Parts: sequence; structure tokens; C-alpha cells
Amino acid sequence: MESLVIRGSAFTAQDEYHVQPLNDCLVCVDAAGWIERVLLPADDDYDRVLANARQHHRLRALAEDEYLLPGLIDLHVHAPQWPQAGLALDRPLADWLNVYTFPLEARFSDQVFAGKVYQDFVKTLLAHGTTTAMMFGTIHVDANMVLADECRRQGLRGYVGQVTMDNPEQTPDYYRDHSAEDALAASEQFIQRVQASPDPDSLVTPVITPRFVPSCTDAALAGLGRLAAKYDLPIQSHVSESNWESQYAIDRFGMHDAEVLNRFGLLTSRAVMAHGTQLTGRDMQLLRKQQTAIAHCPISNIYFGNGVLPVHQLLAMGNRVGLGSDISGGYTPSLYHNIRQAVKSSRMLTDGVDSRRPAAQRGVADSQITAATAFYLATAGGAQALNLAAGRIAVGCRADLQVVRAQRMWKRMSDADVFERLMYQTEAADIKGVYVNGHLVYEN
Amino acid sequence: MESLVIRGSAFTAQDEYHVQPLNDCLVCVDAAGWIERVLLPADDDYDRVLANARQHHRLRALAEDEYLLPGLIDLHVHAPQWPQAGLALDRPLADWLNVYTFPLEARFSDQVFAGKVYQDFVKTLLAHGTTTAMMFGTIHVDANMVLADECRRQGLRGYVGQVTMDNPEQTPDYYRDHSAEDALAASEQFIQRVQASPDPDSLVTPVITPRFVPSCTDAALAGLGRLAAKYDLPIQSHVSESNWESQYAIDRFGMHDAEVLNRFGLLTSRAVMAHGTQLTGRDMQLLRKQQTAIAHCPISNIYFGNGVLPVHQLLAMGNRVGLGSDISGGYTPSLYHNIRQAVKSSRMLTDGVDSRRPAAQRGVADSQITAATAFYLATAGGAQALNLAAGRIAVGCRADLQVVRAQRMWKRMSDADVFERLMYQTEAADIKGVYVNGHLVYEN
Repeated sequence: MESLVIRGSAFTAQDEYHVQPLNDCLVCVDAAGWIERVLLPADDDYDRVLANARQHHRLRALAEDEYLLPGLIDLHVHAPQWPQAGLALDRPLADWLNVYTFPLEARFSDQVFAGKVYQDFVKTLLAHGTTTAMMFGTIHVDANMVLADECRRQGLRGYVGQVTMDNPEQTPDYYRDHSAEDALAASEQFIQRVQASPDPDSLVTPVITPRFVPSCTDAALAGLGRLAAKYDLPIQSHVSESNWESQYAIDRFGMHDAEVLNRFGLLTSRAVMAHGTQLTGRDMQLLRKQQTAIAHCPISNIYFGNGVLPVHQLLAMGNRVGLGSDISGGYTPSLYHNIRQAVKSSRMLTDGVDSRRPAAQRGVADSQITAATAFYLATAGGAQALNLAAGRIAVGCRADLQVVRAQRMWKRMSDADVFERLMYQTEAADIKGVYVNGHLVYEN
Repeated sequence: MESLVIRGSAFTAQDEYHVQPLNDCLVCVDAAGWIERVLLPADDDYDRVLANARQHHRLRALAEDEYLLPGLIDLHVHAPQWPQAGLALDRPLADWLNVYTFPLEARFSDQVFAGKVYQDFVKTLLAHGTTTAMMFGTIHVDANMVLADECRRQGLRGYVGQVTMDNPEQTPDYYRDHSAEDALAASEQFIQRVQASPDPDSLVTPVITPRFVPSCTDAALAGLGRLAAKYDLPIQSHVSESNWESQYAIDRFGMHDAEVLNRFGLLTSRAVMAHGTQLTGRDMQLLRKQQTAIAHCPISNIYFGNGVLPVHQLLAMGNRVGLGSDISGGYTPSLYHNIRQAVKSSRMLTDGVDSRRPAAQRGVADSQITAATAFYLATAGGAQALNLAAGRIAVGCRADLQVVRAQRMWKRMSDADVFERLMYQTEAADIKGVYVNGHLVYEN
């Protein structure tokens, strides 16, 4: 028998381009936190299941202005950078790294500080409707364990990475892995500690995390590729994220960084690479062939990416794409803001930005994506990237869900309009409840 | 003696590029709602004024995580489009106009409907920290009076426009002024009714409002120019806002629409023209010469503007620029969102969007603006456009202010960082109080 039935109107991604409304549906969740049935009013069992759930006090009936959505999946976020979200965005990159980011991450050698930040950050993600997050930690095993433990304690589905950064030419003395051996030992230690901890809901997965190609020696990159295979784990990093970084890989290796990552066994079907704004067509083909997903971080890319990721084209070619907040290249933990920016950036790619150019030569034709596609990225797209049965309100998916209050409606609105309204106007204050594995982990 | 003293840390625009922090200041407001003193702790009178205010129960002391900012000035918003904010943005322009916008605006012949919408909308603007709004109404004098009355009732400083749209070739039969004479009579009637209503705080100003050049006959445009001069009133319209609209003016008049507006006496030092994304350098010079301001609407421009307004260049040349939400070309009433998008769009103009182009040819160099400049647009820039003594926390300005709660800070932050944090992370839930003319008109 269901342990929870939620009644209300819902939306879920049907595919990359279409959203399916589920009006007045019943979402039935089993005791292990899986969606076992989704019933519509026309279904035979609807009334019986509804009455039964009501009778056994297992019914949550949404209010008239509330809607049920899948929980959002944040494919790329630097958890230790949470204290500096929204800062230093007007500074040059070198400042951003050396004055803000590296000193802040170095502070996570202090586990008490780590505990406070991570407790607040995990809560913040849930409060924004995010139920799964793929996160970079720091180089500190203990602090990363604090993050993993906090995910389990609060109920956030967390893919947590022990960061590897051992290249003395690109990292500060006060914050780096002091050798490839140290880095690999730390990664393996983190993996084993996570896997040894109790996790009945399978909430936490360790992630192989080379910071990015410039930060790592060849030995570290090779070792991480082997570790990823040995433990069959997800991998996360950044790829072709800026003019500078693209050029670095060419200077050091004589090839693009996507190719570099591939040579070291780091482009797999469990890998997620952030940004990709400077990927060439051939790079994109390589990622597609390897089934490596791109974590599209539209807000962050504006400040650091030097261009707009062509999401429409990538999806059309069959690449895997999800969405990331990239705290703190991105200033907000809200994936709703990133959904909106993904649409906006795609419109700007299509239209171009410089009005002095003739209209026909200003942009890249047919690059726009719709709100439905951006929603797909933030839900089913992210789930696909993680090979995770979630991100949809569908039988066989985990009950990772959010209850969202809509803005006032002035007349009866079509499903398409209701959906668009939810995408464009939802803020954290509108997230009324969040479920992970069928447990209510956040309430507002 | 002051009728109100607010104690706290504040920020105000010093100029287009710099923000002035006022740490632990006292803002002293007189009985007529003007800022008469701004004291800092080092000032001789500080302690005495503080003690006096406390003793007479006239002190509002902000909490430690609260900051005082000028109220924001929204230079361009279509009040009747509030019910459709966030909708139809994926539709082509013809749909947006003919399926959504015109039918919705036509509904404002119903004063009861107008009352409900405008009551909600005015409250929403205040709740987002907006203290002054320059608004298009509809063609209905009675509904526009409802909007004006609601501004006075709730305390929003409102520049309200009776919309003129009489060109049968560009407007629907069911929603248009049926002749230039009708349109001009309605405008004059609205002006006289507003000016005859009691308004002790001078909250409401009528605005001459040709919808835009395509909507209006020559006779209407000429008549509005004369009305603007006769009553010495502000003027609002749209200029060069899209490829289509730019071309229309050339086809009909053989000149750009900025020139058209000028010929009809509609570019004055009291005029505010929205968008301007397709203005040429000569058009910009003309606006500068006439001291006509541009209402920059960065979110709306993404969907309708076909390019990014070069704000940095305009300010450097001495043009007047402010900020507008453009409900409902823009999906949000939040000027904070528009502050952020103004910065982001300027970065995208600088960097370009198409990564297939070589970096050096991708964008328009040196187009980026900072958060401080975007804040200037939303405060002092808007005030200058309206020739209004507001938009700054300074002696001689109206006490139009907002109290904003900041996100948690993890260490002592510089003033610059605190300011950036406020710009990047403030949402409506963080606006704790709003004052207009020294009256607390909104509390949260």
C-alpha cells in the first residue's frame, strides 16, 4: 500500500521539447520512496485510491494555487563557494580566483566552519526546490564528509566530489594537493568513507573530481581515470569554459581539453562536464559519442564563459545536457533563475547582441529554446546525466518532488500558460514543500 | 523637528559609476516627506539627533542584517498587462499582441476588473521596492483614473498615461481610439481629472502617451505634442525597439522614429522613450540633445528587442538612461531582476554570444556595466529622467526609501561586497519596508 498519495495538478517533462500536464492527478509513493502509480481522474482506480489514502491519513491534497513538479537537479555547484555567492562578479578572473575563491575554499580545513556553511547551503538548495545536486567540495576529505553527512541528514540527494588540484603552476601553495599520490589517496579515502557510511535512501554518491585540466598534473588525471573505472563512479569537471582555459589545453597538450579528458579516461557515460561554451563541433561529437553530459550554467557563463552554449543544437544532435547553478560563478542557488537565463541566453544567441550589425548577420539562427526545454534540462536532462531514475513524475522514478505555489491567476488559464507562469515567476518564497524519496524534507 | 529618523547602513548612487556607502547613518525626514539631513557617526549632531528621535518615538533603527536603499524607479511598465506577466514569451509577436495583449487591455473598459488588477499591481510594485513607476494605462479614462487613485491610496508615486492609439492600420477594431479627436479629448480629460483630484503628496502626474509611432496617426502625434507643451507634462513612448518597428517608421515617414517623434514635439527634456535597442548613433545624439531619457528594459529586450542597448556608451556620451521592468514584455515586476539583467546583458554585449567567431570579433569591446551603474539607472538615473528630486539618500530628496534584509554574511565584508550582495541576491521576500514621502506604505 502507498505510504503517501499526493493529489494535485502537476507538470513533468515528456521529452526535451514538451511538457505533460497531469491535471488533478494522484501520485502514489511506496514505502521505499518510489513513484509506483500516477493516476488521472479518468482512471478506474482513481476514486478508490483517493478515498483509501484519505481514510488512512496518507493523502496530501495540494491547495488550489499549488502545483506539483519534479524536484530540480543542479548538475554543477561549488558548495564551498556558498559564502561568496553574488560577490566579485565585476572583478577580473585572477582576482576572483586568488582574492576570493582559493582563500575561501582553503578555510574548509576548519570542520566547524564547514559544518556551518554546509548546513546552511544544503537547506538553501532544498528551499529552492533542488532535490539533487552534483557538487564540488574542496581538497579536504573531512570537510567533504561533513557535506556528505549533511546531505543525508537533511535529505538532499548529493553527488559529492573530493576535488583534485595538484598542479603547482596553476594552484596556490596554501591550497593544493601536494602531489598526485596525495590527491589520489585522498580521493580514494573519500570514496571509501562515503561508501562505508549508512545510507538507506542511497542519497550520497562520491564523484571523481579533477578541478579542471589546468589544475591537474598528467599523473593525477590518469590516476583519476583509473579510480573512476575501478569504483564505477560519476566524474565531474569543467570543459572548454572560457577562451583562456581552451587555449591553455592547446598550449599544454596540443589538443582541446575535451580530447585531453578523453585520453585520461574521464569522458564516460557517467561524466558531467560543466559549461562547454568554447567546445568546437568536433568536441561536441566526442562528448556525444562518450555519452558525457554537459552541465549548462547560463548565469555563470555570462561572467566567465565568453559565449552562449548552443543548447538547441546540442539537443538536436543528441548530446546530453542538464542545468547547473555553478555557485559561485553563478550568483544564485535558484535553478529557476537558471531556467529563465537558459531561455534568455538562447534568445540572445539567436538574435545577436550588436545592433550595428545587420539583423540577418547578428546572431545564430534557430538557437532559441523554450521554457519547456529549460525545464527538461533542470529535471529529466539532469537525471539522464546522472543515470538516475528521477526528474520525472512517472512510475519508476524516485519521489523527488516539489510543491510550488503559483502567482494569482486572473482568469482560467491554459495548461501551457500555467506552466509558463510557474517557470517565469517562481521564487524561493513560493516553494511550499520538498520531498526526496517520498520524505518531506523541507516545508515553508 | 524631524518626523522620522531612520538609523542604519545605507547605499546611494554617487554618480553613474560609484556607490556611496553611508555606514550607520541617520536619515532625517521632515513632516512634508523630504530628507532634510543625513548624518554620519562622526558628525557633531549625530548623538543628539539620535537621542532626541529615540526619546520622541520617531526612530526606526534597522536590524543588523538590514540596509537602507533609495526606492527604485521603474521608468516603463504597462500596468494593464500585469495579469499576463510571464506568459506568451515563446509566442511570435503577432500572437503576443493579438491573442494576449490587446484583448487583455480591452478588458479595462470594466472598472471593477481594473480596480482589482490595479490594486494588486500597485501593491506588488511596492512589495518589490519600487517607489516610483512610469506607467502606460489603457485607452479608458475611467480605468486610468482607477490606477491614479490606487497610486494615491497606497502611496506609490505614479506617472500615469492615458494611452493614445488611433491608427486603424495597426490597431484592432475592438481596442483603439476611434479618431485623433477622440484620442486627444480623452488625454486632455484624463489630465484635467488627475489635476483636479486632491494630491497632498504630489504622488500622481499624468503623462502624454502615444503608444508608439505605428499606433498613431499624424494628427494624434501632432496633437499630443501640443498637449505636452500646453500642460508641461512628461511624455512616454517606445522608440526603435525592434527590427520591425524601426523599419515601419522608415517605410511610413522616410526617417527613423526618433526623428519622427522629434518632428511632432515629443522628444523633450520630460520625455522617456523605452528600449531604443535599434537606435543609430545619430538617433542617440538627437535624444541627448533633446535631453530625452531612454528607459532601458533589459529583460524585455531579450524577447522583443533584437539586440542589447549599449548602456555604457550611452552614459559615456551623456545620454539620460533609467531602468524599466516593461511588464509584460518583461516577466517580472522586480527591478532587482532588471538590475541583474542589465549587468548580464552588458557582459554578453561585450563578450559576444557566438563562440564560433574569433574572440576578438565576437562582441562590442568595453560595453560592460557594473552593478553600481545598474543601481544608478534604477535610482538616480530614473529620477533624472523624471526631473524628480528622489532616487538618492541625500538632502533635498524625497524620502522614498526601502529597507532590505541582506543574506547571511559569513565574515566581515567590505562595503563593496555588501552592496554587490544586495544587488545580486535581493528578492521580494527581502524587502521589509517601503517609504514614500516619509510614509511607511508597505511592510513585510
